[in-house]
This record gives sequence, C-alpha cells and structure tokens, in this order.
Amino acid sequence: MTTPAEAPDRSSALDLDACRAAYAELQALGLRLDLTRGKPSAEQLDLSRDLLELPGRDAFTAADGTDVRNYGGLDGLPELRSIFAELLNVPVAQLLAQGNATLTLMYDTLAYAMLFGVPGSPRPWSREEAVAFICPVPGYDRHFAVTEELGIRMIPVPMTADGPDAEAVAALVADDPRIKGMWVVPTYANPDGSTVTTEVARRLVSMPTAAPDFRIVWDNAYALHHLTDEQTPSADALRLAAEAGNPDRVLMYASTSKITFAGAGVSFIGASPDNIAWFRRHLGIQSIGPDKVNQLRHALFFRDADGVRALMQEHRRILAPKFAAVQRVLEARLGGLGIASWTTPKGGYFVSLDVVPGTASRVIELAKAAGVALTPAGSTFPYRHDPDDRNIRLAPSMPPLDEVQKAMDAVATCVLLAAAEAAAG
Amino acid sequence: MTTPAEAPDRSSALDLDACRAAYAELQALGLRLDLTRGKPSAEQLDLSRDLLELPGRDAFTAADGTDVRNYGGLDGLPELRSIFAELLNVPVAQLLAQGNATLTLMYDTLAYAMLFGVPGSPRPWSREEAVAFICPVPGYDRHFAVTEELGIRMIPVPMTADGPDAEAVAALVADDPRIKGMWVVPTYANPDGSTVTTEVARRLVSMPTAAPDFRIVWDNAYALHHLTDEQTPSADALRLAAEAGNPDRVLMYASTSKITFAGAGVSFIGASPDNIAWFRRHLGIQSIGPDKVNQLRHALFFRDADGVRALMQEHRRILAPKFAAVQRVLEARLGGLGIASWTTPKGGYFVSLDVVPGTASRVIELAKAAGVALTPAGSTFPYRHDPDDRNIRLAPSMPPLDEVQKAMDAVATCVLLAAAEAAAG
Repeated sequence: MTTPAEAPDRSSALDLDACRAAYAELQALGLRLDLTRGKPSAEQLDLSRDLLELPGRDAFTAADGTDVRNYGGLDGLPELRSIFAELLNVPVAQLLAQGNATLTLMYDTLAYAMLFGVPGSPRPWSREEAVAFICPVPGYDRHFAVTEELGIRMIPVPMTADGPDAEAVAALVADDPRIKGMWVVPTYANPDGSTVTTEVARRLVSMPTAAPDFRIVWDNAYALHHLTDEQTPSADALRLAAEAGNPDRVLMYASTSKITFAGAGVSFIGASPDNIAWFRRHLGIQSIGPDKVNQLRHALFFRDADGVRALMQEHRRILAPKFAAVQRVLEARLGGLGIASWTTPKGGYFVSLDVVPGTASRVIELAKAAGVALTPAGSTFPYRHDPDDRNIRLAPSMPPLDEVQKAMDAVATCVLLAAAEAAAG
Repeated sequence: MTTPAEAPDRSSALDLDACRAAYAELQALGLRLDLTRGKPSAEQLDLSRDLLELPGRDAFTAADGTDVRNYGGLDGLPELRSIFAELLNVPVAQLLAQGNATLTLMYDTLAYAMLFGVPGSPRPWSREEAVAFICPVPGYDRHFAVTEELGIRMIPVPMTADGPDAEAVAALVADDPRIKGMWVVPTYANPDGSTVTTEVARRLVSMPTAAPDFRIVWDNAYALHHLTDEQTPSADALRLAAEAGNPDRVLMYASTSKITFAGAGVSFIGASPDNIAWFRRHLGIQSIGPDKVNQLRHALFFRDADGVRALMQEHRRILAPKFAAVQRVLEARLGGLGIASWTTPKGGYFVSLDVVPGTASRVIELAKAAGVALTPAGSTFPYRHDPDDRNIRLAPSMPPLDEVQKAMDAVATCVLLAAAEAAAG
C-alpha cells in the first residue's frame, strides 16, 4: 500500500552514499553464505536418518516375493509405486518408480523423443526441421539446460499467479507444428511459487495444438511441499487430459528428492497407458531395472502415504521459518519503496525476487563480492538471458535460519545499492 | 579324442527311439528350471548382506566432507572411485562412479553419440547417412538390443579364443567410415568366456579406421570374476590405446552388479581425459549426481581393493562347482559324439554351447516343453538371428547346484534328441 510517508523513505533509502556505506559495512562482515540452490538442509536430511540403516540385513524380499537385490523389476517396486500412486492420484499401473532423479527421467523422455519420437509423432523429433518448446518464465534452469542441450528452441511465455499464461501458450501452439511441448512446474513453481489452477490446467490439456505429438512435461517436484495449512492441491492433469480427449499430452514427474535424501531418493513418472508403454519400451533397452533395494528402503521407511504426509509436516516445521525470514527482511528493507517485488510462496523451495530492471546482474555481482552466493543472473530464463535483467531466484532452504536472515539482509543491501546506482544513472 | 569305441557309442546315443524315450522320461519329471540369465544366486547375494544395513545412521559424510545425502558430486564418490581405479588400472580422474547399471551408461554413451557425436565426430551420428557397429558373435543380447534400438546396423564378426577376430575387424573398419565402433566384452566374454589377449587388444586400438571417431565399447563386466587360480588379467586397453596414439578409442565400463547386488550396485565408466570430459558434459545436463549414499555404502563395505578381491573369492567358491557340473554333464552325456562343442570358461557367467547346426532352436523348444528355460535361440547374435541355428548360451549361476545338474542333464537329453531328429532327416 502506498502511504504518504513513502516518498521521503524512498529517497533516504536510495541515497547513493548511504547505500555505498551500508554495502561497505556488509563487505566488512566477511560473510560466506549461499542461497543458490534448492537443496534441503542437513536438519531436513536428518529426518530420514532411518534410511541409512534400512532395509536391514533380513529385508530383501518385496511384497510380491521378488528378491530386490537381484536384476529385474523394470517398473519399480509395487509397494512404493502404490504409496505414490495415492499421493499423486495416478493409477499404479501408470506410475513407474525409477532412479534417484526426475531430471534424468525428463532428459531421457526428451532424448527418446528426439531419437524415436513419442506416440503420435510423424517422425523422430531430431528429423524435424526444427523443434521448439514453450518455457514459462521465470522457470527452472535445469529444464532449460536439457532443452538447450537437445537443440530444442525455447520460447518464453510469462508465468502468472495461476501458472503459465495459458492464452499466450494456446495462441502460440495453435498454428506452429514445430512447438512440440512445454515445461510446467505445476505446484509451487520454481522459482515463483505459483500453482497451476484447475482452469489453467484444463486449458493447457484441451487447447488445440498444430503438433500432433505435443507434450506437457509436468514436473510436479513440489506436489507435497507445503509451507502453510492451505496445502494447495495439484491440478489433476492426467485426468483432465484424458477428459479433454488428449490423454497422451501430459507426462508427470515427481520424486522423493526433497522428501528423503536429495541425492539418493526415488523418482517417478506417471502418464497415460500409451505413454507409459512407450517410455517403458525404451527404458527396457537402457536399463534392467531400477535400484529396488533403495525402493524397498523407502517403502519400509514411509510405510504408507500418511507416512509421507507426516514427514512433509516435519519439513514444513524446518522450512517455514526460513521462508518467513525471507519475507520479513524483504518487507522491512525493501517494502513500499517501489524498487522490488517478490513472491510469497505457500510451498516449494524458492522465492522469486524482481528488482529494478537492468540491475539483477549487478545485485548478484555485489552480493558475490560481499560473500553471498546467489543463483547467476538470467538463470531463470532460457539461454540464461533475462531480457529485463530483473529476476533473482532466492533459495533459503539450505542455510540455517540465522544465515538466511544474514544473507537476505545482505541481498537487500545489494538491491538498494544497485537501485541507487541505477537512479544516479 | 577320438577312440575306436566312438562310432558305436555315437549311433546308440543318437538312436531316435531311445532319444524320444529319454525325453519322455524327462518330461515326466515335471521340472521347473531356468538357465536363461546371468543372475547371481541368493547365496551370492547373501555375501553382501552387510550392505542392507550400511552406511549406518551416523555415516553420511564422505572422505572429502561431502554430505552424501544431498545433491551433487557428479563424478561419484572419490573413495569408491579410488578402489576401482586400482582394480581396473585407470587413473581416478578418468573413472566416474554412477548408478546401478553399466547398461545405462553404455546406452547413454551411444545416445549422446547419436545426438551430439563424440570427440572427433564430424557431426552427430544420427546425422550420418548410416552408422554401423562391429558385433563379435556370439555376443551379449543386451548390447545388440541397444545398437538395434538406436538404428545402428550390426555387422557380425566371429569370436576366437583370444577375443574378436582382430584381422577381420581391421579389414572391415579400414575402408568403411560408416563403421563407428564395436562391442567388446574383454574378459571372460559373454557368452564364450574368452579373454582378449594383449596382442588382440593392441591390434584393435592400433588399427587404422576410416571413421575418425571410432569407439570400442569395452564392457569389462567380468574383469574380476575368476573361476580358477589363473585369474586371467584384462588387457590394459586404455594404456594400449594411448600408446598407439588413439587415446580416445576405448570407453571402458565395469560395475559391482555381480560383485554385490545385481540390481543395486554401482557402475563405472573409464576413458581418456577427453572422453571423460565429453561424457561428463552431457551427464551433467542429465543428472545432478549419482546415488552417493549407495556409493558410500559400497566403499564402507569393501574398505579397499583387497576387500573386493576377497569377496570375489567367495563368489568363486559358490560358482565354480556349478560351472564344473556343467562341464561334467556335457562331457558325460555329449562328449566324443561329435554333435556338440562347448567352452570351458576360466571366469565370467556363461558357457557357450554349439549344437548340431540347425537344431539350436529345436533344443531350446524341447527344453522349454520339459520345463527348462534356456536363453531364446539366436539371442547371442545381432537381430536374434543365428545363421547356423547352432549357439546356446548357458547361464548356471542362479539355480542351486543340484538344479544346475538336473537342468544340464535335461539340456543334454534335448541336444541328443534334436541331433537324432536331424540325423533322421
């Protein structure tokens, strides 16, 4: 809200000399802080310590009698798939449990598409003259890296509070058969924290596409990662797609990376029967089966879907104060000045901060020189290019709470100095 | 050795009525046995039971201080890489530790080659008019499946007692730039058990190739899997390739799949610095890092290279009697009849049995009808086509010893009946 007192506050807050002095003080602190990546903290990882001694020396038989130590079981362990089928609202038969990373599953999906095409493709995508993907921005740098690696041209479309701008997407894909798909982080998106509403999801799965083999890579990385009691549910994309007559449009991914161990969890892919059969056919050439011991370990640890839900409450207990600290510092230091805006996510791992256009890279450079590592400028955009040089992704999960506060205070100091410099011209 | 008594033995052994009667007796036993896949037995898996409770609830820090539970560490855990660097004779810096399967590493290597090319490629292999691979036969069905999936034409070349027929390979690759590589299982090959000699290895890494980016996929799956005191060493392919001025020619793979848990082990890729940098560059887009908890688990379990060597002696203790039983039954039932020949491997997981040409698929069909599952006919050849319908891969590792004996006895009965049928015309 604008208040009569704002104008004087703003001019004193952006006094260049004062900002420089504040920054010099910051540098003198000799900080070594890191807000770059959405990694869980050691305290969060400790919640799953039992995994380090599971399954236990007498537990190596799955519910169906399989010896999990041996080869086989391409689809993953049924008891673990069944827990996540409930949590993700996907039939077990349409949900595969695989290795330690959805990034790998998503890469493999698009690599298969390039090499062989997907169901409905006239030819392998690599045989098309050109292939393009819609990339909602700001978005996830590792998605963009996969797309770029595979030579898929990236077309940015803005995010809204309800997910990707569905009308903009629909207009693009209606006439251009080169656009073969799009990235979506449907719940508590990376980095802006927005959640795709059912209306937007329905539009995306229903819109006519010039490409007969259009796919939405529905990376539901934060489906269960609530920070409030609201527990925003994910739009039921697979069901909506089937209802819209486009059952094959959505490929859903989820994992336990931010539930148990970030580097040693289990990933899932959920999709229509035809998509799963297609994925499985290629996967069966690439793999004899996933690490079923790790899947049994997880199934024993979780016990059931409620076990996962209870664990997520523990994560929330640790994470929510850090996110609150980010909001508190941003509001206290930058609120009402008209030089920055930021998101207030109800889940996930990130806060998206927009600073004075043209100053994001300067802010990140200043922070680095003061010992605070931020995600590189442009990371949230295709080709690492933020056309307005404005967006900064903040990841407060990893450092302890007091460090988050210190780091955010440093960020605020840098945002102010960069804004003052810009105003000074 | 031929003996004067052979001819009568042979004619009585191949009496069609007697063979039919023996087969009818076999069917009456109602066996349910399986010699299809090179899977370790439960007794072998039990050797690594400690892994089921490792690393233990207080062990999650690597030697370099990394929290193995979190993201990162693309190259794999240095302490585990160092153990296998010693065992495989590769510098640690040139050896990456990854997920649970070399099959996946090999698939990914060839997928990267198709999509992007390898160091030295004029263009991605998928942009070539045609790509072909040399496939030594008999060979490993999963290698052939990867090659076929990627649309790489397979050119069979015979195996010899010293590895692939190097002169035949050299003649093919000298003039044909479409031939981009070859498969080699250098030690105790699947299925014939032969080991590539240093001379053959040197020839393969030295031979001129029309393709500037020729690669040998050196799948050293059985490097440590000795069945005798001889402990045949693997040819030092990476060193030989570097000495020959072709450092990038060899990509080496190995894993703990048949050392610890077949489905939950650790895989390795070793290669020249340029190849490793290339592989790592693509891997870093596809993965944030392998399951380091599993790698720490393995490092703690092995302790050092001698720990691995000692474990392999335990495997030998379990496996050697099964391989001896195969030899014993084959010799007793088929020896000296001139209707079958087989290998006597000094390591690895397979015995390669050649029967009367034109009868391998009949033998396998007869065995199936008698309740003994054998690897499908043609499996050891590209496109599942054994031109002589002669080769059968026997995998005696999985069943208990008495079942191996029963199954082999059944195989012998089927080989005899099929031979008798063929002789009867």
